[in-house]
Amino acid sequence: MNRPVRTRTDPDEVRARILEVAEEHFRRVGHHKTSVADIASELGMSTANVYRFFPSRDTINGAICWRIVNEVAEIAFAITHTNVSASEKLDRLLTAVHDRNKMILVKEKRMHDLVVAAMQENWAIIKAHIERMVTIFEAIIREGIEASEFEVEDPAEAARAVKTAFVPFLHPILIEHCVQHGEDTEAGLREQIRFILKALGKSD
Amino acid sequence: MNRPVRTRTDPDEVRARILEVAEEHFRRVGHHKTSVADIASELGMSTANVYRFFPSRDTINGAICWRIVNEVAEIAFAITHTNVSASEKLDRLLTAVHDRNKMILVKEKRMHDLVVAAMQENWAIIKAHIERMVTIFEAIIREGIEASEFEVEDPAEAARAVKTAFVPFLHPILIEHCVQHGEDTEAGLREQIRFILKALGKSD
Repeated sequence: MNRPVRTRTDPDEVRARILEVAEEHFRRVGHHKTSVADIASELGMSTANVYRFFPSRDTINGAICWRIVNEVAEIAFAITHTNVSASEKLDRLLTAVHDRNKMILVKEKRMHDLVVAAMQENWAIIKAHIERMVTIFEAIIREGIEASEFEVEDPAEAARAVKTAFVPFLHPILIEHCVQHGEDTEAGLREQIRFILKALGKSD
Repeated sequence: MNRPVRTRTDPDEVRARILEVAEEHFRRVGHHKTSVADIASELGMSTANVYRFFPSRDTINGAICWRIVNEVAEIAFAITHTNVSASEKLDRLLTAVHDRNKMILVKEKRMHDLVVAAMQENWAIIKAHIERMVTIFEAIIREGIEASEFEVEDPAEAARAVKTAFVPFLHPILIEHCVQHGEDTEAGLREQIRFILKALGKSD
């Protein structure tokens, strides 16, 4: 299936089509088995031309990985705009993000593998994603403080701690490990969210 | 250097000497590069004889790994017997265990690699170690409840949550990742311990 791209079209459009084809290949055969030549050939482009838009194979991987984590962030953003208490928001958000990451592992194993690789090779992307998620946590914590639900001295510090306390339910390698060893994450997930909410709650 | 072992000696003693030689090799060349034949040869034993004491190479790895995690547990036990408040105990314990795991990575990389391998191959050993650590956390939490320092409904659940909240500072792969990316773990460690203690503290 060839989908020729005229190189005179808008560069953003070319980039988008390169990524579309790359993602399709990654999902079908995995990122390790996809070459830049495969992508170029499907688009009726030369490999050199693909490299004009993405300086290295690594940047293509990074861009696809960013799409995957972006979907996670969008789920999180959507929850911040629901009309519930801050505790309920944080609970729903943590649950949804865990469920999403687990779903990627179980149903989209090749995308999961790409994210795991990114954690080694494209750390900047993962780091930016984590920072964005921490910012979302912080916004919810500030809401909770305003609503007198939470009592927290330093919302930024608390947001980082929430992220750290939830790493076992977010980190692709740790989720994979749990699933491999047949461990049920559900009960632990509820307990951990209760613990996090208690840490944010009012103290004497 | 040959250290012949008479096979008529106490089986426990033979086992201990096999492990001693294995550990020495593991520390010097790494567990991947140590064969059962190497261990047998240094002890003046046949490989078959080593297998009489350890049914597989995996069980030797497991036993050495158990020694390493045992040292961590001993540090933790020692702290539970100090004469300080429960909060202070938990703080010292979490700090000491993190420091120890980081030290193994930095100064005893080959032992660190063995523990990482065990997390894949000898999960039962790691699981038993984690369960023991959670039991220690639970004992400290119960002490804190009795002393009215902590307010916790279910000490066993809280102990599991403390462990989970501290995974990024305990898990060898995650510690390695931080060190590889030149991230300072110290500030995050203090923040996380504060967060954990707040979660155990009294609420309104």
